[in-house]
Amino acid sequence: MNKAEYEQSELYKLRHSAAHLMAQAVTELFPGVALAIGPPIENGFYYDIDFPEPLREEDLTKIEKKMRELSNLKQPIVRREAKDRADAEKIIREECSLGQPNGVVKYKLELLEDIPEGDPISFYEQQATDKQGNEHMFIDLCRGPHIPDTGTIKHFKLMSLAGAYWRGNVKNKQLTRIYGTAFETKEELELYLHNLEEAKKRDHRKLGRELGLFMFSDKVGPGLPLWLPKGAVLRDTLSDFLKSEQLHRGYEPVVTPNIASKRLYEKSGHILTYKEKMFPFMEDDEKETFILKPMNCPFHIEIYSSTLRSYRDLPVRYAEFGTVYRYEQSGELAGMLRVRGFTQDDAHLFVTPDQLLPEFKGVVDLMMTVLKKLGLDDYRVRVGTRDPDDTKYVGHQDNWDRSEKAILQACDELGLAYEISAGDAAFYGPKLDLIIKDALGREWQMGTVQVDYNLPERFELEYIGEDSKPHRPIMIHRAPFGSLERMIGLLTEQYAGAFPLWLSPVQVAILSIADRHVAYAKSIAEALCGFERDIHLEDEQVPFTPVEATDLGLRVTIDDSRQTLGKKIRETQRLKVPYMLIVGDKDAEAGTVGVRSREDGDLGAMTVPEFIKMVREKLNS
Amino acid sequence: MNKAEYEQSELYKLRHSAAHLMAQAVTELFPGVALAIGPPIENGFYYDIDFPEPLREEDLTKIEKKMRELSNLKQPIVRREAKDRADAEKIIREECSLGQPNGVVKYKLELLEDIPEGDPISFYEQQATDKQGNEHMFIDLCRGPHIPDTGTIKHFKLMSLAGAYWRGNVKNKQLTRIYGTAFETKEELELYLHNLEEAKKRDHRKLGRELGLFMFSDKVGPGLPLWLPKGAVLRDTLSDFLKSEQLHRGYEPVVTPNIASKRLYEKSGHILTYKEKMFPFMEDDEKETFILKPMNCPFHIEIYSSTLRSYRDLPVRYAEFGTVYRYEQSGELAGMLRVRGFTQDDAHLFVTPDQLLPEFKGVVDLMMTVLKKLGLDDYRVRVGTRDPDDTKYVGHQDNWDRSEKAILQACDELGLAYEISAGDAAFYGPKLDLIIKDALGREWQMGTVQVDYNLPERFELEYIGEDSKPHRPIMIHRAPFGSLERMIGLLTEQYAGAFPLWLSPVQVAILSIADRHVAYAKSIAEALCGFERDIHLEDEQVPFTPVEATDLGLRVTIDDSRQTLGKKIRETQRLKVPYMLIVGDKDAEAGTVGVRSREDGDLGAMTVPEFIKMVREKLNS
Repeated sequence: MNKAEYEQSELYKLRHSAAHLMAQAVTELFPGVALAIGPPIENGFYYDIDFPEPLREEDLTKIEKKMRELSNLKQPIVRREAKDRADAEKIIREECSLGQPNGVVKYKLELLEDIPEGDPISFYEQQATDKQGNEHMFIDLCRGPHIPDTGTIKHFKLMSLAGAYWRGNVKNKQLTRIYGTAFETKEELELYLHNLEEAKKRDHRKLGRELGLFMFSDKVGPGLPLWLPKGAVLRDTLSDFLKSEQLHRGYEPVVTPNIASKRLYEKSGHILTYKEKMFPFMEDDEKETFILKPMNCPFHIEIYSSTLRSYRDLPVRYAEFGTVYRYEQSGELAGMLRVRGFTQDDAHLFVTPDQLLPEFKGVVDLMMTVLKKLGLDDYRVRVGTRDPDDTKYVGHQDNWDRSEKAILQACDELGLAYEISAGDAAFYGPKLDLIIKDALGREWQMGTVQVDYNLPERFELEYIGEDSKPHRPIMIHRAPFGSLERMIGLLTEQYAGAFPLWLSPVQVAILSIADRHVAYAKSIAEALCGFERDIHLEDEQVPFTPVEATDLGLRVTIDDSRQTLGKKIRETQRLKVPYMLIVGDKDAEAGTVGVRSREDGDLGAMTVPEFIKMVREKLNS
Repeated sequence: MNKAEYEQSELYKLRHSAAHLMAQAVTELFPGVALAIGPPIENGFYYDIDFPEPLREEDLTKIEKKMRELSNLKQPIVRREAKDRADAEKIIREECSLGQPNGVVKYKLELLEDIPEGDPISFYEQQATDKQGNEHMFIDLCRGPHIPDTGTIKHFKLMSLAGAYWRGNVKNKQLTRIYGTAFETKEELELYLHNLEEAKKRDHRKLGRELGLFMFSDKVGPGLPLWLPKGAVLRDTLSDFLKSEQLHRGYEPVVTPNIASKRLYEKSGHILTYKEKMFPFMEDDEKETFILKPMNCPFHIEIYSSTLRSYRDLPVRYAEFGTVYRYEQSGELAGMLRVRGFTQDDAHLFVTPDQLLPEFKGVVDLMMTVLKKLGLDDYRVRVGTRDPDDTKYVGHQDNWDRSEKAILQACDELGLAYEISAGDAAFYGPKLDLIIKDALGREWQMGTVQVDYNLPERFELEYIGEDSKPHRPIMIHRAPFGSLERMIGLLTEQYAGAFPLWLSPVQVAILSIADRHVAYAKSIAEALCGFERDIHLEDEQVPFTPVEATDLGLRVTIDDSRQTLGKKIRETQRLKVPYMLIVGDKDAEAGTVGVRSREDGDLGAMTVPEFIKMVREKLNS
């Protein structure tokens, strides 16, 4: 459900009415409160309220209880329209205030002033008498719409308190915002609350710290992550996987600087269209000005245009894990999901018009391969095309027709369902977005494939065609991961830090029960990772038969500390290592290991070759 | 021979006398010339001369011929001391001018003025009468020393012409500088000239272009290389090799940003000591100032200090291929040897005092392993220690004693000869430099290992010792390659672009004789590189038995163009590909390839398994 659909939905009305119900409960419980505004929002609703005394977290339960009572009264919710502005003011002062001093409706009176002359002024009113004969009544200045009666508001929860300035202006009074949510069914509410709880546990910022993936530093600055060893291994493993895929698909690696002279961005036009996202320039009045790179494309274009190209040389596919910097507002930074410095798994394809279809298809196929490998198979495809009424687009009409057709045809041939979002194309070309749904049902816009007619034009790119005449190539921009930062942030949440075996920073942890088992542990580690481990053996060791080496190249740790086995196991579990091998006297003697799988629990004793076989199968599956 | 030794050598005197001999020849051939100065220099000598008419390149042969005649006269070279300044001026005006107008000695008169009062004023004079009875004479104001007679100056060559301002001041007249060289033996001269010729052919800037390794772009800016696909493969291959070595030696990878807040460099002190090498700052008056990273160390320190460390956690070894930027003067930039942006194969080790010896030794051992793999086995070791009379050094006397001793002991234990360069230590710790001699006998200062007491102090780094008290770790900085840029520049010259098999961007080129052989070529390529090649086959193909896949993962190209075989071979040779496989009808039928080795020439027909066996052996050797 997109935003427009949501705003037309029953759920939206339900949440709006839930906000009113909450306001009604609050006015009954806390006489003298002044209500401000109470709209539905993405995952629920809120109401901003001016409390005479500060509200406490524990009051929320009380308000919820009162809401439930009021809901059960099945108060009909009725729309009333004021005759005119004076009538509206009268209703506010006399009815909305519920007999309280006029001060409690001061925000409503201000809101009334905002309603344009001539617009209808509506109120929503709900009332009933309870079994004890007490009358309950609530009326609010409101555009609506609402559900027919409060009895439908059954599955709700108040979530949290926050401060909010009246009209969002820090000069105004700070009000208390109560957040709540409501759903149509109990199951939906429970799933939402469960997912919320789960999302907290999976928060990549929290897990990033706990698992030793990355950190931020005040002295380095906001939005500039430093990758710790385990995070660096994640980066390398993801990059190596994509590099290998790209090698097989005819991409060529390039490496370009993180800065360039201002001249480059003047030529590309970014200095006009993208300046607000650029870091402050490095200006040398006597010499030239340099700019920290916000995108890699102009560099790849410089490489393309460094030599004469023939149609036989195309497609040219330049790939770079290019680190770029964007001057995001510090308030907008969010863990790894929005940073100021990040490494794009970038590539630019320079193609002839005839190659657009097969190359676009190749790119989408690569992206699907990548998402499958990452276990992110739940995604939808959105194709951004021209707005037929807009004239901002560069490039020939024919090319646009051809490329929009090519994108749709590529999807069809790959058996991909897609939605078309007309007007969502950039001024320089149509595009395809992949929107992933994660394990908690949250959507993430990930990779984009973008057709570009603009930069080839600006840089006057050429290739010599079969007709021996110069032609202009088309560019395709693409990044299957988006960026290593964002992808690792997403994967951390998707897997709650329990990365798949192939991706785990540590794949196998060997736990020696006593000091005398360390040599045996070491021999297993060496067999699994394929090189010698530098471990100093102080104590006499139990005898064992050395394990034969493998070519697995696994990432293995040995915990040979003098902690209790229980403590070692808990620490390894905390780090979410896929396999734990526990080795003691019997194991050394029999050439076995006690295997604990992160997913399947205790697998009992296995011979080392049995374990190796199992891991090999898992890696190849 | 170092500079001081050279300046005391016979060769130095010989070259000085050769400069005089050249001046004598010039004055005889070009009456009216005014001589300025003519010193010996690193690889020869020059003389700056004011010619009434411009000198042409072809005049150098004439001058050389005259020098040879004058040399053959075996003129004794005699020192004469002037009685006083007036006497000296008289000698210059009457004898040095050789009867020419006084204007020809104007520079000498100026030089005379520069001689401090009281210093001896000496001249060197050479004269003889030739067989035809002509008298030859030359006398020059000169400190000397010189060789006894001109007859010894036999093995010389005039190299080139250049412009040079009198006293190096652009406001003065531009003189003509004639460069020459001279050696004691014919063999030395020939080797020098050969190496010079060879160095031109090996110039990495020229080869970088020809082999498609890297490029520069005006729009990106000076000193900022863009790596083309083959160069990027070189970078990856070198990095992968070192990464693997480092993994085996217990290094952990980290990744840090290319920028940091000014705060970081204030803390590190670089903002005071290193500002001139930093790019202009990225200043935002309302917010914070960022600096483009000139070195990685402060970032690794931030990671070290992000958590409490115990002596059991040490040594910590953080490795990063970190791209840094230094604002070199554009006039000082030189291809890949001096750039403004480069990637250091950087690492920082945090060690306890007890670990300094084994860790330092480990680093030097790694560097030796790297140089051996790269075929750069000819190197010398220089240890930079304190100047005992200087007081600039930070860190305790005891630590210095211990670390200088550790460095020497490490060298001894590794069987490395070294020279000690007292006073060459940085203020923050002693160091070890490796100086490589390349294939042409040129020396390159490469990797440095640096002990550092300063940064741990400034950042107040700590670990908890066995005594449960906080202690300060010692840092070791090291970079075996120096930088990927500099190392690839050096390797390109060392191998004249013919990189060893394991490092070659393209290892095997398969050349199909006709279109019908492309499928066979493709099947061989797939067997060697281990994945499918996307090649479109238009013509009918000859039948063949597909080749079995290998795990070699070679980098293979197929030349299936319609060029003549001769042209294909020449192009492959130009690219210095180690192996060329030529495939035609007979090969497809017999399952063979025609092998041409870059080093060993035509090896005739081999079966594909035979070729694979040979390559495998070569790679493992």
